[in-house]
Amino acid sequence: MADTRRFGLSGAGIYLPRRSLEASELDQLTGLPPGSVERSFGVTSRRRAAPDETSSWMAAEAATAALEEAGWTARSLDVIISACGVMEQPIPGTATLVQRRMGLGDSGIPAFDVNATCLSFLIAFDRVLAGFALGEWRRALIVSADIASAALDYSDPEASVLFGDGAAAIALDADGPHVRLAQVFRTYGDGADLCRLEAGGTRLRPDEDMDRFLEHSKFRMNGPGVFQATARRFPRFMDDLLGAAGIAASDLSCIVPHQASRPALEHLRRSLPGAAEKTVDLFAEVGNLIATSLPFTLATARKEGRLVAGELGLLVGSSAGVSLGGAVIRW
Amino acid sequence: MADTRRFGLSGAGIYLPRRSLEASELDQLTGLPPGSVERSFGVTSRRRAAPDETSSWMAAEAATAALEEAGWTARSLDVIISACGVMEQPIPGTATLVQRRMGLGDSGIPAFDVNATCLSFLIAFDRVLAGFALGEWRRALIVSADIASAALDYSDPEASVLFGDGAAAIALDADGPHVRLAQVFRTYGDGADLCRLEAGGTRLRPDEDMDRFLEHSKFRMNGPGVFQATARRFPRFMDDLLGAAGIAASDLSCIVPHQASRPALEHLRRSLPGAAEKTVDLFAEVGNLIATSLPFTLATARKEGRLVAGELGLLVGSSAGVSLGGAVIRW
Repeated sequence: MADTRRFGLSGAGIYLPRRSLEASELDQLTGLPPGSVERSFGVTSRRRAAPDETSSWMAAEAATAALEEAGWTARSLDVIISACGVMEQPIPGTATLVQRRMGLGDSGIPAFDVNATCLSFLIAFDRVLAGFALGEWRRALIVSADIASAALDYSDPEASVLFGDGAAAIALDADGPHVRLAQVFRTYGDGADLCRLEAGGTRLRPDEDMDRFLEHSKFRMNGPGVFQATARRFPRFMDDLLGAAGIAASDLSCIVPHQASRPALEHLRRSLPGAAEKTVDLFAEVGNLIATSLPFTLATARKEGRLVAGELGLLVGSSAGVSLGGAVIRW
Repeated sequence: MADTRRFGLSGAGIYLPRRSLEASELDQLTGLPPGSVERSFGVTSRRRAAPDETSSWMAAEAATAALEEAGWTARSLDVIISACGVMEQPIPGTATLVQRRMGLGDSGIPAFDVNATCLSFLIAFDRVLAGFALGEWRRALIVSADIASAALDYSDPEASVLFGDGAAAIALDADGPHVRLAQVFRTYGDGADLCRLEAGGTRLRPDEDMDRFLEHSKFRMNGPGVFQATARRFPRFMDDLLGAAGIAASDLSCIVPHQASRPALEHLRRSLPGAAEKTVDLFAEVGNLIATSLPFTLATARKEGRLVAGELGLLVGSSAGVSLGGAVIRW
């Protein structure tokens, strides 16, 4: 269980689409009485990407900001990993499209995608730290971008108003002061139907049954079901993660969660001592950005000075699948 | 560059759809004169998945065969990585769906996807070997399944008849006699338009512009362009890979290639000394299975006794992006 990994967080960048939908507009879209979206879901606004704000374009914007902060040229990167919820297009992968947008199309820098829906970042982060530990890479860039609004059905308020669009990029260095003390990732496929987007892969085909394709082209979520499937496994998951790190929950000074939903964040706050003040909460104005939430929240925590040298932080969340994942980091 | 990794290949399984399209049927579908598909493209038959033969179902069949050969229970796995070209559905990922089909839905065994189109297997393989080297995992399963026929346009013969449907699974053990001597993976995003499937992600949306969505819902390939983009980089790529492994091309005894196309395989045969006899060629009857080709060909080479203990093997291929990737293994 001891899998400590050293790294540096050298730069972080975010991008939010220009257009913001206010809660009152979401009330209208969902057909709910004025004030309902804010009162029932804790949502004050949500960003929505315009056609020119594609996943790879937003990711490249975030990447540019991250590299600028790191003081790195793009060509000094050893690897680019895309960690999105849904790809911009099936072929080729988003990492390749981002590499091209970064002006690296002739560079040969390895670019590939990983996917664990909302926890994709943790899978990419784990891959990068393994590469650092083995001396494979010195500089890595993880990019996440999601356009949830491509598949939202406003007639289902819970499965739509929670979600926002955006991008984030994290530049990681093999040398650095931070140490990941432990990471735990668990998948429970019996919850595969609780959160799903079925159209867009090889199973449903628009030219074979268009009505069925369209019917399944929107994101579907059993909110109470997914909450239950993750909440009942959360105590043991957290015990194992904290145990692997050799720390107590009270030792944590900053909690960077996936911004799944207001109830999920409240559950996290109640589950861990002192979590109410320690949790970085962007839910009201930014919301659930699918796989982009975790790196976006990490970038925000960093900018706000909440990743204090020597103190302990937690990255944590759940994803469609369902999966639970988390990492304990000494910043 | 020295990144030797020890592993065991404990089991391998494949699955091919029941339905086989003969070359004469492909002639009819493409509207070409009888005999053209075999003569022009070197294709004798292609498998086509039925609706019940989904990606996750085929992958689970292959996984069962691989685990049986390994003599492992499914619950003894430490990780399941899906390495497909195109997902079964966008949310949740294919690895999760396969985990559930394997009866592991309550197991917690980590399941996630990686994607580098036709070279996804190499990315997954690299991740597994890193996990073995770091002591994270003892037993890993990589599953690949692709249903190219979901997006083929027979009015473009080259972009359709090359491709087949199928699945493969590879069971890997941290203990074992094999050593990966080197792996190289390079991405050139300036070729991102050469092979593409644009509909199915966040950019094109069926409810916004159905005609445009349908127009881009078929796989498009600039065959000569992709051949040129990869062939001109191949010599340096191979030099670097062989150099990293510290061997000469003539030292190789078995070449396991991605089954991209007849010209791609012929180019490989001409490029490396003795490759004509050493190359495992499944193109005529199985063809390009997208990401499944590499593990499928590896499983076949193993079954045919072509992975000889102590001898040197090569996994190699190109993918949309474009990327080039390869690994040198001492079996």
